[in-house]
Amino acid sequence: MPEDDSTYMRLALRLAARGVGRTSPNPVVGAVVVRGRAVVGKGYHERAGGPHAEVHALAAAGDLARGGTLYVTLEPCNHVGRTPPCTEAIIRSGVDRVVVGCRDPNPHVIGKGVEVLRSQGLDVEVGVEEERCRRLNDAFIKHVTTGLPMVVAKAAASLDGKIACATGDSRWITNERSRRFVHRLRRAFDAVLVGVGTVLADDPQLTPRIPGRGGKKPLRVILDTNLRTPFESQVVRSAAEAPTLIATGPQPDRGRVGRFQERGVEILALPFEEGRVSPSRLLRELGSRQITSLLVEGGAEVHGSFFRAGLVDKVYFFYAPKIIGGRDAVPLVGGRGAAVVGESLALSRVRVRRFDGDIMVEAYVATSPLLAAEAG
Amino acid sequence: MPEDDSTYMRLALRLAARGVGRTSPNPVVGAVVVRGRAVVGKGYHERAGGPHAEVHALAAAGDLARGGTLYVTLEPCNHVGRTPPCTEAIIRSGVDRVVVGCRDPNPHVIGKGVEVLRSQGLDVEVGVEEERCRRLNDAFIKHVTTGLPMVVAKAAASLDGKIACATGDSRWITNERSRRFVHRLRRAFDAVLVGVGTVLADDPQLTPRIPGRGGKKPLRVILDTNLRTPFESQVVRSAAEAPTLIATGPQPDRGRVGRFQERGVEILALPFEEGRVSPSRLLRELGSRQITSLLVEGGAEVHGSFFRAGLVDKVYFFYAPKIIGGRDAVPLVGGRGAAVVGESLALSRVRVRRFDGDIMVEAYVATSPLLAAEAG
Repeated sequence: MPEDDSTYMRLALRLAARGVGRTSPNPVVGAVVVRGRAVVGKGYHERAGGPHAEVHALAAAGDLARGGTLYVTLEPCNHVGRTPPCTEAIIRSGVDRVVVGCRDPNPHVIGKGVEVLRSQGLDVEVGVEEERCRRLNDAFIKHVTTGLPMVVAKAAASLDGKIACATGDSRWITNERSRRFVHRLRRAFDAVLVGVGTVLADDPQLTPRIPGRGGKKPLRVILDTNLRTPFESQVVRSAAEAPTLIATGPQPDRGRVGRFQERGVEILALPFEEGRVSPSRLLRELGSRQITSLLVEGGAEVHGSFFRAGLVDKVYFFYAPKIIGGRDAVPLVGGRGAAVVGESLALSRVRVRRFDGDIMVEAYVATSPLLAAEAG
Repeated sequence: MPEDDSTYMRLALRLAARGVGRTSPNPVVGAVVVRGRAVVGKGYHERAGGPHAEVHALAAAGDLARGGTLYVTLEPCNHVGRTPPCTEAIIRSGVDRVVVGCRDPNPHVIGKGVEVLRSQGLDVEVGVEEERCRRLNDAFIKHVTTGLPMVVAKAAASLDGKIACATGDSRWITNERSRRFVHRLRRAFDAVLVGVGTVLADDPQLTPRIPGRGGKKPLRVILDTNLRTPFESQVVRSAAEAPTLIATGPQPDRGRVGRFQERGVEILALPFEEGRVSPSRLLRELGSRQITSLLVEGGAEVHGSFFRAGLVDKVYFFYAPKIIGGRDAVPLVGGRGAAVVGESLALSRVRVRRFDGDIMVEAYVATSPLLAAEAG
């Protein structure tokens, strides 16, 4: 019954999605227990360190799990972490069959969940709705396999690819629906980043402005080679409410550093790369702090340096039905570009969404380890 | 039976579309004669000066038209042009009912077709599939109501809005399916235009490379303020095969003018506007020559001057899934841009099409007379 398998796995996926933004650095996972054609248990991974999805679903099913099927979006763990191995709970529950969305990509996990279940005589199927199950955990997969956060570049542009007029004016290019979507998007990230130019031009707050959920606030990162961030900027003034980090050059002014620290802003001194703060060193630092996902919100030069260094995994570009025009307007991606078209950065898995008149393009960088992992 | 009306009108629209690129400066029109539920006659306007769609369809129906319904995408004419008035043929045919897609926007036509038919006792309905019927004749409508051609700006860009690298390299940004679509698109235009910069950088031929149809070749226009077009360029060398016009400044070098003329290239001297050949004067000249549609294919500065002068009616922007990046790369629209976002040019009726990985955005400039006519 492959259609049924897909149906129940999609239910498990919807459950998993409830955990987005709350389980980092762990994956989001959903699980459903089915007996006959009845769903007898549902669960998802609600927060890092809390019980896993399977455990919730099996507990909800109780004795009804016996002889049933467990659907789980990610391969059950077989190791003791902050919780006991899920494979034990599954075997104990009496389910006959386990359907797994995608394998756990974590190379550090000793003992594979699927093999253990099979060795106990359970019928295990792997790869139902695999693509969706994997995409839901892009950040987890990138971080666990590379130690680096997944990097998503986001920008709001006119149809002619300008993110601001020559005067710097950029409010608002995209419509309210697009901007609301960005606020929802931010909640799913462990960190968001802008360049100091964006702070000086727009003075953004960089917090998800949509209430509810109760998820933790993403770390706000400012790339600021010369420590020009104003003390009176919104991002500094709200440092008590949301974690804030300024990534700057190797020898920042001590006096300024102290004043930022007094205000609750962390200063991270990093080496230069092509005369700017090294974005790759920043990523390594963030990865080591269990930041699994970073939303890079520009401006043009920041996007330019991240793209040029090959650090971006995915893009969310919003285009408003406007023509700004002008040689001197601010382009979507600045910095030093490709010398010839053949050297440009290829994107793939392009998806288009509409927000009324606005168009959103979502795509993966073709060289991203996220796609490489998939091919393997 | 409104659903039936739509069905037959859509058939008439498909017939009309066969005339695209062949009827200028006249409209494309399709017609269907229906008796009971049977289509007893079909026709379309095949070429300028030839019989109108209604005449073809009624002739095909013969006596079967009697008591039937005529569907015609555009209001039948009631004046003697190169052919006798269609209203006469309709009345003579014996149809009881006439369903008209959209009114003839031609302000110069004396005597309205619909009124004449009604005065003869026919049941006339207007406005079935009106939007589609009107859109099919955008060029005719613009030209007949303003004396100017419809101007469509076309560009092929990377997702970050670059049409060439800083080095000028631009081949190829978009994929083959997109480029084939552009060739089909060109066939529907009376004229295509590029700036001399594009001739120097890309040496394009600017002819529709898709065979068949036998439609006339669009006039190729080069905007070339200082008459820098090389004699050995493809567009000059092929001037015997397709009409070619260079629009230049008010006092071109006589020697060069003569050499272009020997090669079959027409030179049109026009006054300056902001230091460049006036695009609005060029449009008036083209309009007076019965050019109803102009495809402006760039580059950046040409698009910039057409947009800035408010002369563009519609855009076809193609985006390839690539990032070119770079402050110095060539932007989709150059020139002098909007000073603030509020002064940018608004587009509406945005449609998105996919050509594999490429995205095509089709949209109208909100201030275009094409949309104004509609609101009225």
